[in-house]
Amino acid sequence: MILHEEIITAMKQRVFEANLELPQYGLVKLTWGNVSEVNRELGIIVIKPSGVKYEKMKADQMVVTDLEGNTLEEGSLKPSSDLPTHVVLYQAFNHIKSIVHTHSTNSVMWAQAGRDLPAYGTTHADTFYGKIPCTRQLTKTEVLEDYEINTGNVIVETFRKRDLKANEIPGVLVYGHGPFTWGDSPTKAVENSLILDEICLMAKENEQINPEIHEIPQYLLDKHYYRKHGVHAYYGQG
Amino acid sequence: MILHEEIITAMKQRVFEANLELPQYGLVKLTWGNVSEVNRELGIIVIKPSGVKYEKMKADQMVVTDLEGNTLEEGSLKPSSDLPTHVVLYQAFNHIKSIVHTHSTNSVMWAQAGRDLPAYGTTHADTFYGKIPCTRQLTKTEVLEDYEINTGNVIVETFRKRDLKANEIPGVLVYGHGPFTWGDSPTKAVENSLILDEICLMAKENEQINPEIHEIPQYLLDKHYYRKHGVHAYYGQG
Amino acid sequence: MILHEEIITAMKQRVFEANLELPQYGLVKLTWGNVSEVNRELGIIVIKPSGVKYEKMKADQMVVTDLEGNTLEEGSLKPSSDLPTHVVLYQAFNHIKSIVHTHSTNSVMWAQAGRDLPAYGTTHADTFYGKIPCTRQLTKTEVLEDYEINTGNVIVETFRKRDLKANEIPGVLVYGHGPFTWGDSPTKAVENSLILDEICLMAKENEQINPEIHEIPQYLLDKHYYRKHGVHAYYGQG
Amino acid sequence: MILHEEIITAMKQRVFEANLELPQYGLVKLTWGNVSEVNRELGIIVIKPSGVKYEKMKADQMVVTDLEGNTLEEGSLKPSSDLPTHVVLYQAFNHIKSIVHTHSTNSVMWAQAGRDLPAYGTTHADTFYGKIPCTRQLTKTEVLEDYEINTGNVIVETFRKRDLKANEIPGVLVYGHGPFTWGDSPTKAVENSLILDEICLMAKENEQINPEIHEIPQYLLDKHYYRKHGVHAYYGQG
Repeated sequence: MILHEEIITAMKQRVFEANLELPQYGLVKLTWGNVSEVNRELGIIVIKPSGVKYEKMKADQMVVTDLEGNTLEEGSLKPSSDLPTHVVLYQAFNHIKSIVHTHSTNSVMWAQAGRDLPAYGTTHADTFYGKIPCTRQLTKTEVLEDYEINTGNVIVETFRKRDLKANEIPGVLVYGHGPFTWGDSPTKAVENSLILDEICLMAKENEQINPEIHEIPQYLLDKHYYRKHGVHAYYGQG
Repeated sequence: MILHEEIITAMKQRVFEANLELPQYGLVKLTWGNVSEVNRELGIIVIKPSGVKYEKMKADQMVVTDLEGNTLEEGSLKPSSDLPTHVVLYQAFNHIKSIVHTHSTNSVMWAQAGRDLPAYGTTHADTFYGKIPCTRQLTKTEVLEDYEINTGNVIVETFRKRDLKANEIPGVLVYGHGPFTWGDSPTKAVENSLILDEICLMAKENEQINPEIHEIPQYLLDKHYYRKHGVHAYYGQG
Repeated sequence: MILHEEIITAMKQRVFEANLELPQYGLVKLTWGNVSEVNRELGIIVIKPSGVKYEKMKADQMVVTDLEGNTLEEGSLKPSSDLPTHVVLYQAFNHIKSIVHTHSTNSVMWAQAGRDLPAYGTTHADTFYGKIPCTRQLTKTEVLEDYEINTGNVIVETFRKRDLKANEIPGVLVYGHGPFTWGDSPTKAVENSLILDEICLMAKENEQINPEIHEIPQYLLDKHYYRKHGVHAYYGQG
Repeated sequence: MILHEEIITAMKQRVFEANLELPQYGLVKLTWGNVSEVNRELGIIVIKPSGVKYEKMKADQMVVTDLEGNTLEEGSLKPSSDLPTHVVLYQAFNHIKSIVHTHSTNSVMWAQAGRDLPAYGTTHADTFYGKIPCTRQLTKTEVLEDYEINTGNVIVETFRKRDLKANEIPGVLVYGHGPFTWGDSPTKAVENSLILDEICLMAKENEQINPEIHEIPQYLLDKHYYRKHGVHAYYGQG
């Protein structure tokens, strides 16, 4: 197999920079996060190495694997232990280009609380078209056998059972664990992680300020989501 | 129409700098905010371009429009999608010079909770002469047709129905969305946005520390507000 | 009256630096705070000028007054509008050397909630020998006439009525307003302001984690307070 | 006794750097924390001096003591007043190499609330194998006589009575006071302090978002803990 060096070098650089954004945005402490990018044409995934500190990490340490997660470069570091989850998501959600996993404070709070995140305002609606689902708890068997693969499977199951579209809801809360987000690029997937964390914070406080709070009406959700997405979007420089 | 270049360049600079203050003060993540300034004599508004990242934005990218929001400069970027809301507010509140919109965390929490912000202390009274109103929810029709204009209209309606003066209450919470503030200059409008966010945080915590909390008495509200505003003000260097 | 220039220059420098610590420690936004120092032998107080922004402030702009608060230097800026409160406290608490007033978030929360701050832990006991009192609300007459003096008076009244010693409880919460702290030096008074804000935060959260929480026992309060204060203190380099 | 200069210099440097990480990570304000390291073969402990400000502290000011806490170097500063607690822990938990004590906000909140920290998620399970215990309150006698030693004793008692292993639960909450953590190195002990503070924050918020929250199941706790610890660990490059 001939590797396309230039493309891979560029992917490594993007994945590296996106990983560094995680602590810069306050989404990651220590080594609690990882970003990957896929190139389906070349059949490769680039992902952060496992347990390497952000301040010491270099772009060329990003790990290159095939679409099943097998390391491709000689002398490579070990990939993030969450790689099998990324692999499952790339296979199931075939339009997404990048995945981010963190233990960001507010998203983890909701994941640990085991609740879907309601759409309480337009900040939510600008990016996520409706509730952000929290998966069911994994069974003992699922945890003991292929834990990281089953983490991916329960995310996919959640989206399928609830008939959600991964491009409309670019993130999920894994019960008792934390968030995964995705997007068209590493930058976008990191942004979605930042937004998810912020709306998790807002939602928690909302319920304290007004325990009777309801989700925003569907027409306001539609307005804000489609102001930024789809053919009629008019936000930004187009 | 002959544009007054020097004045406009200065306006762009002020609007640019005030926009940059938003992330510096922690009021804005990503591109979630905008500042504008009006010059009624020249008939122009200067506002942030839509969806441009703060770290890449330049002063000469600020967008110049007429008082109806029509872009005046050839090759201009698209103005903030919230411009129509600014236009309505400049027309209705004819003394204000600058408007700021953000999705700052604590202000959005109250806006999403759909509650007026009570005046629980002198930090509030120093700047806002009484409760800060939260608008009613927009109807489906208002959202589907001219959403941003109707966002302005519901703010104006709120101030008119409650007989509030925009110069005494330089800010509002839009139901389910977030805050708008205003002032005599971009700097002042940004300050009011900062203050609103801080008193939203304080108020939330107050209610947790003491669920029986009342607003401060009118005489204390008067004292602090008029210590800083009006002909008898004695705070600052005068 | 001959001013002792060197001593005053040093006081200005200390007061200036202590004022700058307030935003550095996150205790003050905008111009919401002031520090003063007294020299009873020379009969002077040095205090921050009113409403001057921290980032533009210079040491020689600190305002010098007599012990009644009358400005002593020609061409001086106006002193902080809270100066009369400082004057009252310096007269009543004749051992204190410096006073700090802020609108720091967590202290204001408790002041607005109108509650004494219970001594829930050793972080509190290391600096404050027991509950930190919240004053009663000022009457309408007290607010309308000599508001800032009466703010000082109600603090003094609170300490006298409850038989508290200002050197053992170097701070207070003024109902609906915010904290005043004091100490042996501007640095120490600022530290006490920082500590007060931190224990206000801790106490609020404590009550949420455990609504049945009690204050620590007197013997633990004694141990920690006297580990750092008095003739048997053994903390620090002595 | 001949001191092994090179080893001690290296220990001082590590202890110094780990102490500086405490304010960098936001775990310590003012002088509220200390780190120590033990070398059982040489029979020495190196610890932060008492009450010295972090910004002025130098590596060669770290204090060297024997295993009973007696200062070994002529002209040494006084060691941290918490040294006797460290001594007790080093004697009882004979595999640990470094101890950290802080007054970090969220850990103190739980310590003051007097509650064990439940294992609500995988962020907890990655480092702490189960609930983090909160000690009982010290008796009056224990506080009056040998307070710091008895603080160590009550920690050891807590681990013994509950049959906990200090290498599996590298931290504790001392009732009404705050956290102690430990690890294989100063860096690791500081990391554990950071993690403890973060999971204390998450747990508090979890209970607000979902008052019915349960701890994660044992099989998920096992999975995450042993993914990072023990002979079957597969996280990181190790």
